[in-house]
Amino acid sequence: MAKATQEHPPSTERDLSEGLTLPEFEELVRGEYLYPLWVARVNRATELRTPIKPHLWSWKHLRRRMFQIGELIPLGKEGADRRALTLRNPGLPITRMGTTHTLVAAVQMIHGTEVAPSHRHTPAALRLIKEGKGACTVVNGEPESMEKGDLLLTPSWYWHGHFSEHDEPMLWMDGLDVPLVLSLGANFYEDYPSKLQPAQAPRDESIRRFSAGGLLPVGERTSSPNSPLLNYRWSRTEEKLMQLTDRDGSPFDGVALQFTNPFTGGPVMPTIDCSIQLFRPGEKTRAHRHTSSIVYNVVRGSGSTVVDGQRLEWTEGDIFCVPTWACHHHANASESEDAILFSMNDSPVLQALGMYRETSCEEGETH
Amino acid sequence: MAKATQEHPPSTERDLSEGLTLPEFEELVRGEYLYPLWVARVNRATELRTPIKPHLWSWKHLRRRMFQIGELIPLGKEGADRRALTLRNPGLPITRMGTTHTLVAAVQMIHGTEVAPSHRHTPAALRLIKEGKGACTVVNGEPESMEKGDLLLTPSWYWHGHFSEHDEPMLWMDGLDVPLVLSLGANFYEDYPSKLQPAQAPRDESIRRFSAGGLLPVGERTSSPNSPLLNYRWSRTEEKLMQLTDRDGSPFDGVALQFTNPFTGGPVMPTIDCSIQLFRPGEKTRAHRHTSSIVYNVVRGSGSTVVDGQRLEWTEGDIFCVPTWACHHHANASESEDAILFSMNDSPVLQALGMYRETSCEEGETH
Amino acid sequence: MAKATQEHPPSTERDLSEGLTLPEFEELVRGEYLYPLWVARVNRATELRTPIKPHLWSWKHLRRRMFQIGELIPLGKEGADRRALTLRNPGLPITRMGTTHTLVAAVQMIHGTEVAPSHRHTPAALRLIKEGKGACTVVNGEPESMEKGDLLLTPSWYWHGHFSEHDEPMLWMDGLDVPLVLSLGANFYEDYPSKLQPAQAPRDESIRRFSAGGLLPVGERTSSPNSPLLNYRWSRTEEKLMQLTDRDGSPFDGVALQFTNPFTGGPVMPTIDCSIQLFRPGEKTRAHRHTSSIVYNVVRGSGSTVVDGQRLEWTEGDIFCVPTWACHHHANASESEDAILFSMNDSPVLQALGMYRETSCEEGETH
Amino acid sequence: MAKATQEHPPSTERDLSEGLTLPEFEELVRGEYLYPLWVARVNRATELRTPIKPHLWSWKHLRRRMFQIGELIPLGKEGADRRALTLRNPGLPITRMGTTHTLVAAVQMIHGTEVAPSHRHTPAALRLIKEGKGACTVVNGEPESMEKGDLLLTPSWYWHGHFSEHDEPMLWMDGLDVPLVLSLGANFYEDYPSKLQPAQAPRDESIRRFSAGGLLPVGERTSSPNSPLLNYRWSRTEEKLMQLTDRDGSPFDGVALQFTNPFTGGPVMPTIDCSIQLFRPGEKTRAHRHTSSIVYNVVRGSGSTVVDGQRLEWTEGDIFCVPTWACHHHANASESEDAILFSMNDSPVLQALGMYRETSCEEGETH
Repeated sequence: MAKATQEHPPSTERDLSEGLTLPEFEELVRGEYLYPLWVARVNRATELRTPIKPHLWSWKHLRRRMFQIGELIPLGKEGADRRALTLRNPGLPITRMGTTHTLVAAVQMIHGTEVAPSHRHTPAALRLIKEGKGACTVVNGEPESMEKGDLLLTPSWYWHGHFSEHDEPMLWMDGLDVPLVLSLGANFYEDYPSKLQPAQAPRDESIRRFSAGGLLPVGERTSSPNSPLLNYRWSRTEEKLMQLTDRDGSPFDGVALQFTNPFTGGPVMPTIDCSIQLFRPGEKTRAHRHTSSIVYNVVRGSGSTVVDGQRLEWTEGDIFCVPTWACHHHANASESEDAILFSMNDSPVLQALGMYRETSCEEGETH
Repeated sequence: MAKATQEHPPSTERDLSEGLTLPEFEELVRGEYLYPLWVARVNRATELRTPIKPHLWSWKHLRRRMFQIGELIPLGKEGADRRALTLRNPGLPITRMGTTHTLVAAVQMIHGTEVAPSHRHTPAALRLIKEGKGACTVVNGEPESMEKGDLLLTPSWYWHGHFSEHDEPMLWMDGLDVPLVLSLGANFYEDYPSKLQPAQAPRDESIRRFSAGGLLPVGERTSSPNSPLLNYRWSRTEEKLMQLTDRDGSPFDGVALQFTNPFTGGPVMPTIDCSIQLFRPGEKTRAHRHTSSIVYNVVRGSGSTVVDGQRLEWTEGDIFCVPTWACHHHANASESEDAILFSMNDSPVLQALGMYRETSCEEGETH
Repeated sequence: MAKATQEHPPSTERDLSEGLTLPEFEELVRGEYLYPLWVARVNRATELRTPIKPHLWSWKHLRRRMFQIGELIPLGKEGADRRALTLRNPGLPITRMGTTHTLVAAVQMIHGTEVAPSHRHTPAALRLIKEGKGACTVVNGEPESMEKGDLLLTPSWYWHGHFSEHDEPMLWMDGLDVPLVLSLGANFYEDYPSKLQPAQAPRDESIRRFSAGGLLPVGERTSSPNSPLLNYRWSRTEEKLMQLTDRDGSPFDGVALQFTNPFTGGPVMPTIDCSIQLFRPGEKTRAHRHTSSIVYNVVRGSGSTVVDGQRLEWTEGDIFCVPTWACHHHANASESEDAILFSMNDSPVLQALGMYRETSCEEGETH
Repeated sequence: MAKATQEHPPSTERDLSEGLTLPEFEELVRGEYLYPLWVARVNRATELRTPIKPHLWSWKHLRRRMFQIGELIPLGKEGADRRALTLRNPGLPITRMGTTHTLVAAVQMIHGTEVAPSHRHTPAALRLIKEGKGACTVVNGEPESMEKGDLLLTPSWYWHGHFSEHDEPMLWMDGLDVPLVLSLGANFYEDYPSKLQPAQAPRDESIRRFSAGGLLPVGERTSSPNSPLLNYRWSRTEEKLMQLTDRDGSPFDGVALQFTNPFTGGPVMPTIDCSIQLFRPGEKTRAHRHTSSIVYNVVRGSGSTVVDGQRLEWTEGDIFCVPTWACHHHANASESEDAILFSMNDSPVLQALGMYRETSCEEGETH
């Protein structure tokens, strides 16, 4: 008897509950870990779709902060495992991590001769190299050299650490699915036994083996859902993107290349899709919206993106986000130069769960 | 110049930032929508996996509350669209909906001659019928009669409303993926133009067409990821479950049947997997844990489930939850009767995103 | 030098080849294992699509022959491993096995107390039970009892043998993909070490475990492409088929059920698809054709099928075939009774290889 | 009554059949389009797996014949649509086309200024360019320029024609799945309305769009099972193959690259898989066998392949075949130079139908 009452009010109270008014009843059950559905009407709260707001972080400012922090904190056990500032969306409380509701971007810096120790975690990560030279990421024992514009992958639960062999500091943008993984309660983390995982393969081996379209080494298939190509070199990406500039492209996205897993033709990782898109001089796109959210990084040029009526003006290096279901359209500000955007989005998540929707936006909706 | 400072501190402040200490710097950047990663160390916060706590709601109590509310609030526009109490996990703030971090259970009641108006939403729903008779759910125009023990599906974005043709009130457990859909910002909702969608198919047509294992009507395939079978009748479920009782079953789950989509053999809906499991008299299972979370409903018998060291004693009708990665094992309290549990879980989500993990628990972990 | 000339004509002949006319040249290269493509024009030989002809074998006659052979040859090592007559298409030479170009049907008989020894082979097989009682097929150690109308599977490389516990002889139609497997050079065969594989599971266990639509035992998934349900009982098939008779059905096939693999929703085996179709009293279908070929067995009623202008009149038990790409349409001869056809076809092969085509036939094509 | 006897012997004969001996019975039923299974024992005839024999056609000889025929027959309607000699396996009758039981190779030649008219057919085709320059294949309106070593695809039912803009004749090896398509009765053929399909895309557009590993143009996905990349340029293939030479490779195949469909990571076409393999100086491989058959073309170097005990000595340009389930191993004859083999095989067919098997060969089985 005593045990039963642990979870519910004493019987005297129960008798009292008989004559309650509706508001009194609603108050009562809230204390019993119950919630009156008709009060919440949460199903209809589509106006509360997301707390995420469109926002832009300027590279000029981010870069300045990174150089400051480079002097304030060392890398390693005595300081920071990673010298990184994450971009917290203005719509989120200060305790929450996220540039959108599923993705987080950060800016990271490594100085010459430094080592960012090897570890692994279930959140998947990518890096887009912004400046500097001479750094290397060791992914599951394979050193991948980093050059400006490269897209590197460190998929879920792959060991990874960084080191630099050059005097010059290197800066890159990180992209991870940490908010998604946290919301699913699926976060796991492990430090590598030693500081940096030793190289177990020649440098840039994944490029050698997996970067030729339509040619795959025999005998290297695995059950991994992740791309075996760990570095998408900028020189190649740029060359291919430039070869598309005479094509119509998408009315919403200009000419664009998707980064893909050569073993499947699908996205590079099961939770993050990446692409690179180019707006020709003076090009403006039509507005659309979708249930995936996006983080952009400006690779080249300058322009603007209007997100649910808010204009974000961008130039090289800037990082900005588009929340889920926000109408957005782009314009290249230059009449003579191309503008190029890298982006990562969570569409593979929405598609796998049957929740992907996309629609063009009527003129009136975005003004 | 004025525009630039909208996003960042004025230049005078920037100059001041030069001589800051590390704590001062950290404080400064927080105001710029940046977050020092080394402070958060969020990757490592695996001890903060989930706020969800093991909890049990007793059917005896839930049933009493439902009958009370049945007298306090009518169904329909003048009252509640749905007369339902959702089960809010004690680990969540009062404003959040969720029995686990992805799933929510509720108890719903319909009186004779009442109508719960038709609507549709992107969250997927299921119903497990607990008592009463004579009610019917109209799913995309097809009336499905409800009998005790039945599992009914109303997949994402399918129209659905309920009505009763019988004096007796009917009670059931609802199960939805609302917390998941909200966390992904993919919630959409729409009312049906009239009160109840008219029937456009014979009653229980989906049972007639899709309930024979290994026999599917020619010409009825669609691209939907949802099961075409909308009602899994209890009489059939029970018969099949009883035919498995002489088998070993799983050491963790006893003998169990998965409810499946006959078109694919996979889960009934892309975000929710359902199963029914039986513990023979005196049967105790071994403990395991996985990155999926579970909501159980006791169909028959009584017993206990130990979840991360906390014992939940259950009897018929009770609803309880197991958070992600919580070690859990079950015991049938009776030496003479079977115990049967229905459960719904989010494993399709974790598996689609490459985040499913499962492991047995060592003795010491669960005591 | 001597070695090189092994494969090609001596050099003196080569010199002679210089002044040849085109016909002389064509004759010369034929002797060198070369063939002038312009002579063959084989690509265009679509009129030579298949040597297979529409044909019907009457059950009355087949049955009489089976009883005769039942007295002439015993089952077992001293006689025949299988007492079966295969149905050779009239379009094939006497040394080729095939009812169509990919499938072969046979009629098989087992007397009371006889045993057809266990063996396995890469060709996949099915049985449709026509008459008698008391026989059993042991498939990979699981005894499946056979009743009139049942569809039993013995997939590729599964051990299988038959025995009878009843006085009455039993007759069934076999269906196999032997011609396909032979044409692909993939035929393998093995005798079981002893006469009959011992039972390793309860009788009809596959029905108990896998025959409930939308309910699958947890923990029994394998990588096999074959249905785990080994016997599709007629009583259930008939019941479900009858529940479809108020539906429109297909204009080409009436109301029809596909036999499916409950683990995938696809065909029962990777090379053979089976279905059961019903024509209502007086029902006539429209003509169509496809690149799959079909073998039909009349389960009930009588009617006719016109195949490329040739009328096949059928009654219960008869077996007939429709070659690939032949226009065909059906008519139930009765104005008061249903007609039911079982059929097997090779469409999974054509579909897997990207060669499936289907089109309706214009009136003029089939007369 | 008269109709019934059309299909079966007259009733007087039937009465006579009663007293027949077994041999007399067997003879009788053969005339009724029936075959006694126990006589055929075809299931066990694994020794009759395939009539295909190992064979080699020397390039030196093929080339000589092609130049001869180049003078004897013009291209076009007045002569040959295609100036090609197909390689007929010595194990096949003269009326059958096939280098193996599923694949056929041919050698084709086009002179400067000639046109091989556009057509399409369900058999899939590929070309491996052997010598010459200046020719072009128009595939579905896209001109693909041909250079020595290139692999070009003309998938099933794609329009294709060839033309040359250069004085020099061009020679290539064709590879098709004609024997497979014919055996499945799925052969369709159509001439293009005019002589050569006009160009509807820039030259080599498929290379520009689809040849970058892990980068695919957004918005170009189709439901085709065929690779969108229509030309695998030799310069790139060679470069990638050379980058693998420091790897172990397969004990059976040396270091090898599979040509793949960038949209799926699978084979280039649903019925034909292609690969390129390299044997380092002095390298010998171990013997294995599989239920797929292979046609090889020697791209570089010289060596030998032992097929079921028969030694085939090959040098650049030679074409040879390995029948299904034949044990085979390779040796590079040179101690200083690499040897490179291109090959096409039918493994996608066997795998799609669940008939793929592979095993290493014991020492005793091959020499």
